[in-house]
Amino acid sequence: MPIDILISEVGPRDGLQSVQATMPTADKRAWIDALHGAGLREIEVGSFVPARHLPQMADVAEVVRHSLGKPGLTVMALAPNLRGAAAAIAAGVHKVTLPVSASEAHSLANVRQTRAEMVEVVREVVRLRDAQAPQVRIEVGLSTAFGCTLQGPVPDDDVVRLAAALAAAGVDEIGLSDTTGMANPAQVRRLFQRVRAEIGARTGSAHLHNTRGLGLANCLAAYDVGVRIFDSSHGGLGGCPYAPGASGNVVTEDLVFLFESMGVATGVDLDKLIRARALLQAGLPGEPLYGMTPDAGLPKGFVYARDRADR
Amino acid sequence: MPIDILISEVGPRDGLQSVQATMPTADKRAWIDALHGAGLREIEVGSFVPARHLPQMADVAEVVRHSLGKPGLTVMALAPNLRGAAAAIAAGVHKVTLPVSASEAHSLANVRQTRAEMVEVVREVVRLRDAQAPQVRIEVGLSTAFGCTLQGPVPDDDVVRLAAALAAAGVDEIGLSDTTGMANPAQVRRLFQRVRAEIGARTGSAHLHNTRGLGLANCLAAYDVGVRIFDSSHGGLGGCPYAPGASGNVVTEDLVFLFESMGVATGVDLDKLIRARALLQAGLPGEPLYGMTPDAGLPKGFVYARDRADR
Repeated sequence: MPIDILISEVGPRDGLQSVQATMPTADKRAWIDALHGAGLREIEVGSFVPARHLPQMADVAEVVRHSLGKPGLTVMALAPNLRGAAAAIAAGVHKVTLPVSASEAHSLANVRQTRAEMVEVVREVVRLRDAQAPQVRIEVGLSTAFGCTLQGPVPDDDVVRLAAALAAAGVDEIGLSDTTGMANPAQVRRLFQRVRAEIGARTGSAHLHNTRGLGLANCLAAYDVGVRIFDSSHGGLGGCPYAPGASGNVVTEDLVFLFESMGVATGVDLDKLIRARALLQAGLPGEPLYGMTPDAGLPKGFVYARDRADR
Repeated sequence: MPIDILISEVGPRDGLQSVQATMPTADKRAWIDALHGAGLREIEVGSFVPARHLPQMADVAEVVRHSLGKPGLTVMALAPNLRGAAAAIAAGVHKVTLPVSASEAHSLANVRQTRAEMVEVVREVVRLRDAQAPQVRIEVGLSTAFGCTLQGPVPDDDVVRLAAALAAAGVDEIGLSDTTGMANPAQVRRLFQRVRAEIGARTGSAHLHNTRGLGLANCLAAYDVGVRIFDSSHGGLGGCPYAPGASGNVVTEDLVFLFESMGVATGVDLDKLIRARALLQAGLPGEPLYGMTPDAGLPKGFVYARDRADR
């Protein structure tokens, strides 16, 4: 079944990394199975970081191995550096994603490296990929692309220049992340248009947060200017640097409803996706989940994009 | 200070009407004072309905009287019929708003009148206004314009035809309401464009709900096609036909943040608006409030539209 946009599910990585509890491996497997069963075609299943830093991800290689068997699924993992990328490639992932901060202050605070140094790291990862596993795709998510809690506004020019440098380094997809929930629709349109003008088809996903409630409005804005890959998190898990009750990541369930109701096919079955929340909850008892569509249910007369008469 | 859009605050009517508790009159006054103090220029302060049906609104005439004194404030009240409109006009409101269902099924279930009969009611209200108080503006909010829980989809043609009939009847502003939270951005753009093509400058406010999380995305869509009046509710109070936790009305705080962050001036001070939540809460102890911006706070480097260098 053809889709109009790709939803890249980040819950098993971004979400699980953000919560205190560690989800048991068996629960991760069952949850990922349900996400794939609901029609998601790309899942970021974990992060290749030392287990002493992030015990939630100690089983990442095993989770990758389990996920690789699923038909039509792109298995992605995050790697913060060359070592992590090498481990991800060795584990057999289809796609490695590396975060690079658009804000120099955030880069230094977060990974103790400048942006220029991070571009070099990415270049090494691309070389490794070229030598060992040319079929693996390399993605970079430009974090703090829309603003930074340390330095405040991030100049558009910085983002565009960094995207160009990463494209020149051989990165396949360069996405923009609203790490801090500071993006607005006018900015999303402007920045994605500028990045696309610079790097064309290497323009990647919109990773937008719902920190101040603008998550779906920003996704709509990105869609309006041609973005066709969207990151989101099942149950809105993760991505939240603030108080309880303040969700971070865009909620996959609501994102699917947004697009399907507009007639934009996602390939995702909302009923199955909503039922899969029980598996997420079983693996993380007591963890708050977000999303409005699961509470409200599908409206009377709802028709999936693929089933529309005008399609 | 000039504004780019008008936010029409519906909390004291739509919000208070939807909760079980009755807010004491003194608390209503203090809350409305704070909303006006935060820069809101139009407030729907109550509903002229029999107190035996809606005890929350028994003091509406007194609340109108109190509100009329505030500089620059348009005082609006809802009236379900001619009798209510007469009482609202007698109380001195600047604007009367009447709900008319776009769905015949909803109209019959809700007010036991057909849509055609409701157009006649509105015509009588316009006559009364013309005779007694020509300065009063008459608004109609077309409820269920984007879909109905009883009949499902509502044809665009029905909405356009009804808007034309109401314009011909002399209504000043005809808005579209997503009573049931079924609207999507593609539909919002299409329907507002069609209505504007039919009735031009009489096209009124977008009253959109956040039932399935699409509230702000739908507001953005309406703004994109020229809508410049938006209904919303302080703290997201009211408008929710579903379970607890499922918010109904678009939250004024988040709506202001959406537009101000885009560089669209609302005239509203977000810090004052957020502080005003304490007054709302004082008058309705224990009532859940919604909104993400109040929890997250304003981002570092936030600049109001009016203060932007490029303005």
